[in-house]
Amino acid sequence: MKVVLADGTGVREFEFIEWIRRQSRFDPAVVPLGPGDDMAAVTCGGEQVLVTVDQALEGVHFILAEHGAEAVGAKAMNRNLSDVAAMAALPVAAVAAVALPKGFARKDAEGVYLGLRAAGDAFGCPLVGGDVGAWNGKLAISVTVLARPAGLRTILRNGAKIGDAICLTGQLGGAWRSRRHLSFVPRVKEARQLAARYNLHAMIDISDGLAGDLAHICRDSAVGAEVLASAIPIHPDVGNGKEQTRGDNNLSPARRMVMSALSDGEDYELLFTLPDDQAGDLIHTQPLPIPVTRIGMVIEAKELVLVNEDGKREPLPGAAWQHAT
Amino acid sequence: MKVVLADGTGVREFEFIEWIRRQSRFDPAVVPLGPGDDMAAVTCGGEQVLVTVDQALEGVHFILAEHGAEAVGAKAMNRNLSDVAAMAALPVAAVAAVALPKGFARKDAEGVYLGLRAAGDAFGCPLVGGDVGAWNGKLAISVTVLARPAGLRTILRNGAKIGDAICLTGQLGGAWRSRRHLSFVPRVKEARQLAARYNLHAMIDISDGLAGDLAHICRDSAVGAEVLASAIPIHPDVGNGKEQTRGDNNLSPARRMVMSALSDGEDYELLFTLPDDQAGDLIHTQPLPIPVTRIGMVIEAKELVLVNEDGKREPLPGAAWQHAT
Repeated sequence: MKVVLADGTGVREFEFIEWIRRQSRFDPAVVPLGPGDDMAAVTCGGEQVLVTVDQALEGVHFILAEHGAEAVGAKAMNRNLSDVAAMAALPVAAVAAVALPKGFARKDAEGVYLGLRAAGDAFGCPLVGGDVGAWNGKLAISVTVLARPAGLRTILRNGAKIGDAICLTGQLGGAWRSRRHLSFVPRVKEARQLAARYNLHAMIDISDGLAGDLAHICRDSAVGAEVLASAIPIHPDVGNGKEQTRGDNNLSPARRMVMSALSDGEDYELLFTLPDDQAGDLIHTQPLPIPVTRIGMVIEAKELVLVNEDGKREPLPGAAWQHAT
Repeated sequence: MKVVLADGTGVREFEFIEWIRRQSRFDPAVVPLGPGDDMAAVTCGGEQVLVTVDQALEGVHFILAEHGAEAVGAKAMNRNLSDVAAMAALPVAAVAAVALPKGFARKDAEGVYLGLRAAGDAFGCPLVGGDVGAWNGKLAISVTVLARPAGLRTILRNGAKIGDAICLTGQLGGAWRSRRHLSFVPRVKEARQLAARYNLHAMIDISDGLAGDLAHICRDSAVGAEVLASAIPIHPDVGNGKEQTRGDNNLSPARRMVMSALSDGEDYELLFTLPDDQAGDLIHTQPLPIPVTRIGMVIEAKELVLVNEDGKREPLPGAAWQHAT
């Protein structure tokens, strides 16, 4: 679940979320976890049920004509499964609402459905229902996924502790340009492997970019973070940094590469904190099929700091994230 | 959960739903009820969880400038609660995805949220999470509601039996014109009262119009229905039928009124079947705060028949439903 408001809206993201949080009052017996994490949790009979909703919107999260209907459907599902991963939960089922533009081709409607379904089925998350409507508007796909803890403690954003190591799976940056944002594999299995083996204190999936999502963890945990620029794993999709993509011709190639990793977004990797000694074991043993990297540590001062290779410290750039579209 | 495709789309409603149904294969232990009813059911740990999703789209389900943000938010929630009612289930919690047009006013965004929340809270259904995004498109609101059987058997669409009486709550027609579609009260409580007291065989909420939703019950139950025109409870919002609203200047006022009740839609009343003798008791005792009317009976022949006041029989008009907008 996210709130991402691009430039030009009259609604400012952070303030609006804060406003919604202030409005919400829940009975903790019924709603153990309200808005603000990757999923909410509700009590349903004797079970805890986790739920998340995320939409995929034409022109923001995909461009149908470029990306194709099946890839778009798959992305809409996988964004939600990535939220399930961020809680170390197990998916149960999904429903989807699809608003089709008038004149939409039948084969594209089928493609969206097939993409949604295949992505869900890959993680034992059947698409059990939906709402399809035609309108005089653009393609919008909203997916809701139900999940359950299934034997593991759910990992929230608010548990980071001072001195924790900050780690992440995979490599960051360049996902939109390379179209990796359409083909990523949500880290559902990896999250459960990590949570079963280590005492994860906080976890989130990196959809807004490392800087923005680390900021979520720090704010909710009332801590700060220090990130080593040289430790950030940069995805080959970022390229060599020689290409100017941001109107930033004053930046060095190396700096451009770090900026991409910090703020491109759409990586859908796991960002988590855990006790430093456990991180040592994790980094040493590398128990996952994808690399895990330690990039920094949780600090007491409530600030986000980037430590550059020359030792120079600066406020972590890229906390505000916008799509490249 | 519905599929409503207006004129002008390349996707034909009925065929597309049938196609989706043919694609779906579920493990009944995990998904006791797949797509095609008012809600789906999944097994989550030891509990059965019901889930429905419905969207409210600008220009189809509401006109923001006319109806106002809070009413629009409330309608988006209440459409889903009406699906919960149709199963005789108890709401647990809701999540919402909202796509905001760029430049959307903060006060309208707050209004949508407040409308959603107030409508949910009225039925013990807290809004526990959501996704808000801005896009270069129109306002779209998608709501997912979780529910549980809570001691009652869930009432499906497919249980109607030959000889059953067909009954409904309230009165039909004129809901869009009068804006009743914004202020209806979902029949959650009434449905549970009925299900606790009578052996309901099939139930649906009337969102597409009586004719269309009765067709859903009949198709899924493999039966037909006979409806008495004179028995249909016509809402005062329909007016006296003297106003020509459909390019139908050959119709009598009485006929226009019946047509409104059959096909205007957006009534959100309960349509259900039960054994004829139990219907006698129900109609006699009128146990609900709203009227219940018997309008016809379930027949063996797989056809939908309207019996007019002069005894003349005809195919039930209005099975295909379009918004008046």
